[in-house]
Amino acid sequence: MNRVGRRARRILPALMLVASEACMVNAQSNAALNVMPLPAKVEHTDGSLKIDASFRIVFAGYREPRLEHAGLRLERQIQRQTGIVILRANKSGGPATLEATTDRESKAIQELGEDESYTLDVTPTGAKLHAANPLGMLHGLQTFLQLIAITPEGFSVPAMHVEDRPRFPWRGLMIDSARHFIPPDVIKRNLDGMEAVKMNVFHWHLSENQGFRAESRKFPKLHEQGSDGLFYTQEEIRDVVEYARDRGIRVVPEFDMPGHSTAWFAGYPELASGGGPYAVERKWGVFDPAMDPTDEKTYKFLNEFIGEMARLFPDQFFHIGGDEVNGKEWDANPKIQTFMKSHRIKNNAELQAYFSGRVQELVTKHKKTPVGWDEVLVPGVPKTIVIQSWRGVDSLAAAAKDGYRGILSNGYYLDLGWSAARHYAMDPLAGPAAALTPQQKQLILGGESCIWSEYVNAENIDSRIWPRNAAIAERLWSPEGTNDVASMYARMETEATRLEWLGLTHRSFQRTMLQRIAGSWTPVEFDALRAVAQALEHEKDYAREASASVPPTSLTPLNRLVDTVYPESDVSRRFSLAVDQFIGSGCKDPAVAAQIRAQLTDWATVDDRLQLLAQSSHLVREAAPASAALSQSAKIALVALDAISKGTPLPDDQRKAQISSLNALEQQAHKAQLTLPDLPAFQKLIDAASAGSSCAGQK
Amino acid sequence: MNRVGRRARRILPALMLVASEACMVNAQSNAALNVMPLPAKVEHTDGSLKIDASFRIVFAGYREPRLEHAGLRLERQIQRQTGIVILRANKSGGPATLEATTDRESKAIQELGEDESYTLDVTPTGAKLHAANPLGMLHGLQTFLQLIAITPEGFSVPAMHVEDRPRFPWRGLMIDSARHFIPPDVIKRNLDGMEAVKMNVFHWHLSENQGFRAESRKFPKLHEQGSDGLFYTQEEIRDVVEYARDRGIRVVPEFDMPGHSTAWFAGYPELASGGGPYAVERKWGVFDPAMDPTDEKTYKFLNEFIGEMARLFPDQFFHIGGDEVNGKEWDANPKIQTFMKSHRIKNNAELQAYFSGRVQELVTKHKKTPVGWDEVLVPGVPKTIVIQSWRGVDSLAAAAKDGYRGILSNGYYLDLGWSAARHYAMDPLAGPAAALTPQQKQLILGGESCIWSEYVNAENIDSRIWPRNAAIAERLWSPEGTNDVASMYARMETEATRLEWLGLTHRSFQRTMLQRIAGSWTPVEFDALRAVAQALEHEKDYAREASASVPPTSLTPLNRLVDTVYPESDVSRRFSLAVDQFIGSGCKDPAVAAQIRAQLTDWATVDDRLQLLAQSSHLVREAAPASAALSQSAKIALVALDAISKGTPLPDDQRKAQISSLNALEQQAHKAQLTLPDLPAFQKLIDAASAGSSCAGQK
Repeated sequence: MNRVGRRARRILPALMLVASEACMVNAQSNAALNVMPLPAKVEHTDGSLKIDASFRIVFAGYREPRLEHAGLRLERQIQRQTGIVILRANKSGGPATLEATTDRESKAIQELGEDESYTLDVTPTGAKLHAANPLGMLHGLQTFLQLIAITPEGFSVPAMHVEDRPRFPWRGLMIDSARHFIPPDVIKRNLDGMEAVKMNVFHWHLSENQGFRAESRKFPKLHEQGSDGLFYTQEEIRDVVEYARDRGIRVVPEFDMPGHSTAWFAGYPELASGGGPYAVERKWGVFDPAMDPTDEKTYKFLNEFIGEMARLFPDQFFHIGGDEVNGKEWDANPKIQTFMKSHRIKNNAELQAYFSGRVQELVTKHKKTPVGWDEVLVPGVPKTIVIQSWRGVDSLAAAAKDGYRGILSNGYYLDLGWSAARHYAMDPLAGPAAALTPQQKQLILGGESCIWSEYVNAENIDSRIWPRNAAIAERLWSPEGTNDVASMYARMETEATRLEWLGLTHRSFQRTMLQRIAGSWTPVEFDALRAVAQALEHEKDYAREASASVPPTSLTPLNRLVDTVYPESDVSRRFSLAVDQFIGSGCKDPAVAAQIRAQLTDWATVDDRLQLLAQSSHLVREAAPASAALSQSAKIALVALDAISKGTPLPDDQRKAQISSLNALEQQAHKAQLTLPDLPAFQKLIDAASAGSSCAGQK
Repeated sequence: MNRVGRRARRILPALMLVASEACMVNAQSNAALNVMPLPAKVEHTDGSLKIDASFRIVFAGYREPRLEHAGLRLERQIQRQTGIVILRANKSGGPATLEATTDRESKAIQELGEDESYTLDVTPTGAKLHAANPLGMLHGLQTFLQLIAITPEGFSVPAMHVEDRPRFPWRGLMIDSARHFIPPDVIKRNLDGMEAVKMNVFHWHLSENQGFRAESRKFPKLHEQGSDGLFYTQEEIRDVVEYARDRGIRVVPEFDMPGHSTAWFAGYPELASGGGPYAVERKWGVFDPAMDPTDEKTYKFLNEFIGEMARLFPDQFFHIGGDEVNGKEWDANPKIQTFMKSHRIKNNAELQAYFSGRVQELVTKHKKTPVGWDEVLVPGVPKTIVIQSWRGVDSLAAAAKDGYRGILSNGYYLDLGWSAARHYAMDPLAGPAAALTPQQKQLILGGESCIWSEYVNAENIDSRIWPRNAAIAERLWSPEGTNDVASMYARMETEATRLEWLGLTHRSFQRTMLQRIAGSWTPVEFDALRAVAQALEHEKDYAREASASVPPTSLTPLNRLVDTVYPESDVSRRFSLAVDQFIGSGCKDPAVAAQIRAQLTDWATVDDRLQLLAQSSHLVREAAPASAALSQSAKIALVALDAISKGTPLPDDQRKAQISSLNALEQQAHKAQLTLPDLPAFQKLIDAASAGSSCAGQK
């Protein structure tokens, strides 16, 4: 995890980015197979299988309730996707549209590395799905569902043969439900989304300085004093775990220690290294409170607590956090200093290693395998531990060389607002890992996307996860070398629509949030606000913390435009592609020029309408500088477009002035913690309009 | 109810419509008080009460769990509406923002006619809400919630004094969950909507030819054989009843008999008058099967069944349907004919009256008050029965004269696709009822909107109920003479947005349905489809049944454009208002002319883009004639607008040809069972452009 240190590595090599952008324009044809993640092997055959009210799935071979549930879910999803009425009660004996054969059971408690493969054969007369166990069957059903498409003749699945299996056995999503509480129903719909893209690990980040979210019956003051009443009951947790299991998803709980633990101390200050008193932290950042690693009662408490949670969460893996201890409470505590001296512990890193070792023993004693963030990897740590790397592929490869299993999260932090393409370019086996031996490579189990929730709550979390998480899911499932970015985007857009049928709100949330921001409005004003929202993105990486005028806290409303915009603007991505296409044509394509002009004109005029709204709403007013920046920068780009179309190149001083204006406008947008994702495209137009460019003076 | 006979009365007097349309343009100022239904009395005072994270509601006087729930719900709604974080756990002792005082309890089982009044005083330092009992308190909380608005300084409630009470004690919504099953969560969110607009009766239509939806433990074959597995368990029913009670809403169940009852006979054919065999009906219409009123075992069955349901539904009222028996099974059954002769029953109406009398006795025996549709009102029926009138205000007034209590549903059938203004114009005390004595008027208890579900399912039901139902709710709550249609629309639009915070999907459903129809698409194509969808309406009244090429059934997918368009197009309503304004200005207002031209140009060009989609989707292709009709008719209107702007009047033959083309285009739209709501506005433009009009030759 890590909320500060990870800043260091946020910049992806520029070369990789340029390469992916270049791919975007071509290869739209790969979008034809609307499956995400792409299967390992697909052979198209002739014809298609009609999907109508006679649809019937029949399970053969090994049977269990989970398969029955999956069949009902498939039928419900077909009904949602197509509107077709499927009355199962009405046709117990008809022929099967989809025959789904499972060879044998999977493990009662789902294990890492079980067979997840399946084969699917679709012919005009029926489909056959085959899997070794229910896990593969669940994945195959999702592929079948994704293949259903509307045609001029109705809904159908194109005939084909699919053989599929995952590249990595650990394909996870971590949700931070501690900084902001994420209600169980929101967790569940995200599990539905994970199932759709074949992710198989839900990493549940349950404790933080800002909240302790799991009910403990042994130590009830953990959730009573540490959660503001916002926690998961044990019944809710069991329900989520069962829900996940039904979808082939393991649930790995994380209780972060010895740092990130202020909320524990609200109820149990005796665990801490400082004098207290402690209360749930409201601010964001890295804080001083840390458990006392020198007091045996800490381990007595943790032994009982881990035992309780080990029984509640059936998965083999148990995440103990271990990141970002600043050591200040340890430095200030004479008893701890004395302990360190008497035990020849030289520094806080060694002290943390000592603590970490003790906790790992407890986890092992309770028959679980520990997982920890990078920091837990210190000399001598047992090889059983799994390292979750926020530092990057280098440290992951180094750990694998030393015989440690690892999962990659660096590059998969969804809250940083990166583009899907940028996440997609991150590969757990890239860089130094490529040089590992096959055995060492097998130690790299896969990856986990992470959504940290400083600026994420139940209302906007879906939009911060989806659809970009589907690109990460594909990276972790599909064969190495699945790198067609244009195809990925085309399929991701289709998947984004499908995910809405599951109840995810990653698109629909925006309208209601914008209505709140707008207050009462005319359609013209509202359209302006929406156009601004859809053209902008929130600031990337950790800029939001840096640029806030008042430091935000967990009580700060997430109701601003920055909380409402998509992390990656579809509108802007398409605009940038159009600009590339235009310039690529030597500025000679009039249709694309018209398209660019129409979009720029819309943006250029949008601010006048938005300013009307700003008079009646403080939330519009706050965002108004960004709207003005969008309109102003679009006007600058229009000047460049005019210069190109008139064949009168921009003089160099004018070019420089305009680039400088654009940069100032980007700074202006930052006042509302927003960015103008089209700025590079605007700059390209200015460059193309400038004297000496291949486009300038074309007409 | 009645699915055929009610056709006769569907046309509201033209004068009334014209009057309301005329009001629309002015009086927007009344929109300032964004409360719906409008309170009985409002006095504005100075300043406003800030709403922020310190918000705290404190209950005083009489307390009960329902009030506690309402307080939590209020806080949750404030959080949703504003995004402000309210941590109740965090401030047990702070000062009250809203002090809510309740004098005493209401009835344990909510009764008709209990006090529902409240007073609300908002000052800059706090708000005080006062009610005699929890029912009034619940209404007052909704008013407070509606008053929260965004301002340039943040969220606040304007200072004011409100005194409010309902005009009618019975303000209901009937949902037909029998023709299409409506899941409990959809019912619940509609109860939330009802609470928001202060409706207090949920009439639950539970049995029909096409489905029997309530679990019966005494007669389990009712739901097992009569529902395709789609029914409410008794636990779910109790949960819905409790959910409704928490919101001040009574639940009146309806089991329709002796007709509309085929689904009963699937499991219990011995109740029927015919020979069977019986199965759940799939078609729509009025059918022959009817209970055997001459067999004592029918009454033995009904006695036990009504007893069971009377215990399940605590409300005093019990609806026995009683509508639309065609008598064919009775005519064909010699045993019944013999019975009629021996009992001197002259015709089927008398036979039904006999049945009805017997069933009313059973209902009374189980300590409930019967309710029935118009047909149950026959000479000699006890005065306790409540008549629900689908026939109209005349029969309601006549019943009141005879001493019967009644509720109006004629004019409130939401499935007919009427405008909100048209529903709003219906008044239970209009027409002959105006001449009743005050005592007689009191017998008219109020009204009920009804959503019949032939073309309504879980996916689109919200859009068929909301927001138009808010206009009916206002008619039943607000003082007589609350008739400003422009104010109503302005407030209804605001309320439509608020209802989305409750989870209602009346707006959001459309995008996902359109995505299904479109299949895969570019944004340009999708925008075209959406523009077409938002400009059109579904056919009104019963035209859909009449114009279907294949008779629809309960298994027909509701996935067409006709199922996706709003019953009342906001876009078209605004366009029509703009045309009225333009013509009202003597065609001299250039800004409005530009607005009209922009809209017409958009519609004129939309079809070209939609036809691209039609090549890949059967559902777009099916709707394409309506899209073409929209574009063609917009082109015709543009010609008229050009003629006006150029000052060259249209010759009379051209005028006639254009009007005739428009009518043909409307017929073409009917192929997809859609209508062009802007047609009258287009015709007005043509008339205004024609020789002799005050507009022609203006420039």
